[in-house]
Amino acid sequence: MTGSDIHRVAVIGTGVIGAGWVSYFLARGLEVVATDPAPAAEDHLRADVTRDWAQLELMGLTPGASVGNLSFTVDIDAAVGTADFVQENGPERLDLKLDLFRRLDAAAPRHVVMSQLQAVCRYPERIVLGHPFNPPHLMPLVEVVGGAGTSPEAIATAMDFYIAIGKRAIHVRREVPAHVANRLQAALWREAFHLVDLGVATVSDIDTAISHGPGLRWAFLGPFLNLHLSGGRGGIDHAMEHLGPAIESWWKDLGNPSLTPELRNKVSKGVHDMLDGRSIEAIENQRDRLLMDLLQAKNGADNFP
Amino acid sequence: MTGSDIHRVAVIGTGVIGAGWVSYFLARGLEVVATDPAPAAEDHLRADVTRDWAQLELMGLTPGASVGNLSFTVDIDAAVGTADFVQENGPERLDLKLDLFRRLDAAAPRHVVMSQLQAVCRYPERIVLGHPFNPPHLMPLVEVVGGAGTSPEAIATAMDFYIAIGKRAIHVRREVPAHVANRLQAALWREAFHLVDLGVATVSDIDTAISHGPGLRWAFLGPFLNLHLSGGRGGIDHAMEHLGPAIESWWKDLGNPSLTPELRNKVSKGVHDMLDGRSIEAIENQRDRLLMDLLQAKNGADNFP
Repeated sequence: MTGSDIHRVAVIGTGVIGAGWVSYFLARGLEVVATDPAPAAEDHLRADVTRDWAQLELMGLTPGASVGNLSFTVDIDAAVGTADFVQENGPERLDLKLDLFRRLDAAAPRHVVMSQLQAVCRYPERIVLGHPFNPPHLMPLVEVVGGAGTSPEAIATAMDFYIAIGKRAIHVRREVPAHVANRLQAALWREAFHLVDLGVATVSDIDTAISHGPGLRWAFLGPFLNLHLSGGRGGIDHAMEHLGPAIESWWKDLGNPSLTPELRNKVSKGVHDMLDGRSIEAIENQRDRLLMDLLQAKNGADNFP
Repeated sequence: MTGSDIHRVAVIGTGVIGAGWVSYFLARGLEVVATDPAPAAEDHLRADVTRDWAQLELMGLTPGASVGNLSFTVDIDAAVGTADFVQENGPERLDLKLDLFRRLDAAAPRHVVMSQLQAVCRYPERIVLGHPFNPPHLMPLVEVVGGAGTSPEAIATAMDFYIAIGKRAIHVRREVPAHVANRLQAALWREAFHLVDLGVATVSDIDTAISHGPGLRWAFLGPFLNLHLSGGRGGIDHAMEHLGPAIESWWKDLGNPSLTPELRNKVSKGVHDMLDGRSIEAIENQRDRLLMDLLQAKNGADNFP
């Protein structure tokens, strides 16, 4: 089974992440069967998909894509029993996950690749973690991670599938806490909290420093290509040779804050001051609009990593 | 003297950063007198300004802006003697800087704000660090840092001036190595090097993780507004309460690599593999094109920090 043999996807759990997957899979022309035990889950899901769909239409739908290809059932066994691929997005609670995976394992046809836990499964080799980023219907990155028992074929099928539907999938080669992108994000947060703690800059100034500074470049060049450009004509080798000692001395000076009540209060106050009454929805809407502009600008560009 | 009283700027040193400042000041309608002792410095500068000008025209010039407002002299005293503001961008060597600042201090009219070192100056109160980001003619961020002897008025004038000409200036309130943005960037590099060192991901996969993942969001939302959106309806307070313990546990697991020859070789090979023969110039051209698209998209958006 390869990624392009996957036509019907079961989405388990339709919160923010699950709903984003549903919208995205539909936009790529797939059939989706969704399931979630929460009251009114289907109504919420259809409302979320309608909102996402307006954005996905602007970004370009795959021929044959239709909201009509979505079905919903509260019967998890029925959802999984007819799917080629299962994308699980249940709550992050181990007891619930174990129960859920026992059921998924029992209900899914054996060739089906599933995303996550394997200890309780008869067929652990097909369990792959496929980790998206918020908002999942727009953000291209998916981190693919195998567990101890995952087969190379399941990794290959999942990578194939995500890439075939237009995602940027990377294979995380070792299981480490938070995988890759969230570790990098945590590293940035750590120093951001430290600088607020020290009083070097305000919450708002730190956000400005990123979103009008290096963050602009990170939208199309990762940390290594950025370092390559810092080296002038000598590129990455010159950069490591000549900036390396300075960068290593900064590493020694980076902070190691604790989220004390005082620091949390300082950050909370800083964020609320900066928001100046703007709602989360207003910020999300603008984020989505700018993300769409940015992704379209990048579509016309050369394909750097 | 306030920021809007500044009409004539002296730019000392016309390497990559200095030339970017010259182009940007000209595009904002200022008169610029540039100086650099290097052979053929004027020819290189005029070529750089011509290249930047095509981009700055697309971004929109201030009425009256003209390349004709640039003059060049090898006489540093003459450059500084008639300027309202001096932007110094000499080499990062303390001996050269000290000599340079002695001369600048002697030659500049007393009311003039200058960027940098103060120990050797008669009027240390006017010395302010104004730190831009590459490419300076496009990147909005400027970090303003005072030294021990800097007057609040000089800080206010420099902030005023940079903001009046369309930059996003932040006041860094304490002198720490690498200020704010480069510390945050160093934090990201540290974990990026660590993950390559551990074999968790390749150089190319790490760049993909940023430029198709969190890097897309950092282009318009800094780390704190991103965390605010991670908290769902509860925002930053919910995020710190519920994600805080996980984030703190990731902080404990982040790495502390050394730039050993082995690690440098691994990174160098990874970057060259990823480049696949593409020149630095090709990457810079695309970076500039995407930066311009992104800045124009952000111009139409609400003014989040």
